[in-house]
Amino acid sequence: MEATISLILEIIGTIAFAISGIKLAAAKKFDWFGAYIVGLMTAIGGGTLRDILLDTTPFWMDNGWYLTVTGLSLLYVILFHRQLERIKSTILIFDTIGLALFVVIGIQKTLTFDYPMWVAIIMGTLTGAFGGVVRDILLNDVPLIFRKDIYGTACIAGGIVYWLMIVCNAEPLLQQLSCAFTVIIIRLLAVKYGWAIPVLRNND
Amino acid sequence: MEATISLILEIIGTIAFAISGIKLAAAKKFDWFGAYIVGLMTAIGGGTLRDILLDTTPFWMDNGWYLTVTGLSLLYVILFHRQLERIKSTILIFDTIGLALFVVIGIQKTLTFDYPMWVAIIMGTLTGAFGGVVRDILLNDVPLIFRKDIYGTACIAGGIVYWLMIVCNAEPLLQQLSCAFTVIIIRLLAVKYGWAIPVLRNND
Amino acid sequence: MEATISLILEIIGTIAFAISGIKLAAAKKFDWFGAYIVGLMTAIGGGTLRDILLDTTPFWMDNGWYLTVTGLSLLYVILFHRQLERIKSTILIFDTIGLALFVVIGIQKTLTFDYPMWVAIIMGTLTGAFGGVVRDILLNDVPLIFRKDIYGTACIAGGIVYWLMIVCNAEPLLQQLSCAFTVIIIRLLAVKYGWAIPVLRNND
Repeated sequence: MEATISLILEIIGTIAFAISGIKLAAAKKFDWFGAYIVGLMTAIGGGTLRDILLDTTPFWMDNGWYLTVTGLSLLYVILFHRQLERIKSTILIFDTIGLALFVVIGIQKTLTFDYPMWVAIIMGTLTGAFGGVVRDILLNDVPLIFRKDIYGTACIAGGIVYWLMIVCNAEPLLQQLSCAFTVIIIRLLAVKYGWAIPVLRNND
Repeated sequence: MEATISLILEIIGTIAFAISGIKLAAAKKFDWFGAYIVGLMTAIGGGTLRDILLDTTPFWMDNGWYLTVTGLSLLYVILFHRQLERIKSTILIFDTIGLALFVVIGIQKTLTFDYPMWVAIIMGTLTGAFGGVVRDILLNDVPLIFRKDIYGTACIAGGIVYWLMIVCNAEPLLQQLSCAFTVIIIRLLAVKYGWAIPVLRNND
Repeated sequence: MEATISLILEIIGTIAFAISGIKLAAAKKFDWFGAYIVGLMTAIGGGTLRDILLDTTPFWMDNGWYLTVTGLSLLYVILFHRQLERIKSTILIFDTIGLALFVVIGIQKTLTFDYPMWVAIIMGTLTGAFGGVVRDILLNDVPLIFRKDIYGTACIAGGIVYWLMIVCNAEPLLQQLSCAFTVIIIRLLAVKYGWAIPVLRNND
């Protein structure tokens, strides 16, 4: 049961991440192939770097779902691109759920390799946020998460809550849910209230 | 014999890929060192990512040829850059042969690691096409293959033909040749007739 | 003793590399999170790619110092950014010491994996110079080291000197010091006298 819910949430997250990449690729006049690759890298880029650093097989090489779901996301955008604007807030919520779940997955997986918690928090943050960095590099833009919004920071906060729950001997499911909800709440409040991290001062 | 032909073709492909990187680096006023690195990454970038994902030693670390051949390509461009325009179609043919061979090598190598065919097709495509993506990232351009031409798609088509030949129990050499010819023919026809993949519509 | 000196020099190098990334991130109006990531990638990017290629655990995952030191570098820039201009030449010297040490570390580590010397020289150069390439990619700039200055070339020269010292059966410490001093001297002379590698001619 829990595994099924987790898989469904992961697919929802993959779709949301893929669509975010595909939409930005469309704005840059990419062709279908380019849009597919950008969508795919947005969805799987973070987890791939995590798995390379952990020296384990990249997760998507064991399971064709991620590539299929990205293909369906592309098809959806090709057919229904007019509706994307209307479902903007749905996409934001999907994207946030995906982000939260990716952070949890990244932390869990790293802990199974017996790394300390600080490495797990970095890997959770990478899993959630690095796909967007690859997306922006492929689009030849400055990575968005370095300049706007609370995004990477929400992942780190979620990771710290995960760690506190471990310290407090909470149930595994509670650890994961607390982490996920922290990411979701911080991210949504940040979008709603326009929270941002201070910009670095510069004297040049 | 077959191994020798394969090595010669691989060197031809490496030269063509390296020259494509070096030429674009020259257009951006890179120095010799920068041009060498861009040429090298164009030639070995795809195979390197493939080997990292397959968790095996990057192929060029076992064999100094790739670096030497890239150095000779740089020397050629430094000395004879005036002739590059004249041999444009020769370079296109070399580049296409290289692409086809890189796809075949990527697929073969992945299959020796017992991955399913769809992973092998992705790895073949990466081997052929990812070097150009790295090149464009280093040049701070939007990757060309995401916006123009049939390139990645030709690799995928070649991979599918390879798979059909396996399904049909064809000889290994026939599998490889069919794959390579598919890539070459699609790519050359695409260049000749200006075939392109549809650009993604965008409502913003 | 030797290990302590080496650690101190490595921390100095990490600080200098991190500050170079953070300063450039500030000029692009990155927020604190973005500046931290750019600083971190500048400091650890080269060694991380080296360790991925050598198929060993990335060095910073064993030791939290690198992330802590980068955090302190960010704090320093936030608090004292007005002073950065004044200590410019100090930073250049730190950066050069860091570069030299990173090259030595990269070569040493590669040799312990029984790779030939030419692979070690490449890994030394990567360790020293690739962090700056990642930094420039994240900043969406053309990598500086491909267009200006003697930087990668100083690393290669240091590597060749290291190799000559091995051939001459010099003491390990002498091998390392000769390599480091070669990098430092070439780099500082290049900055002082404006040495540069020729730019590639281009007929387009």
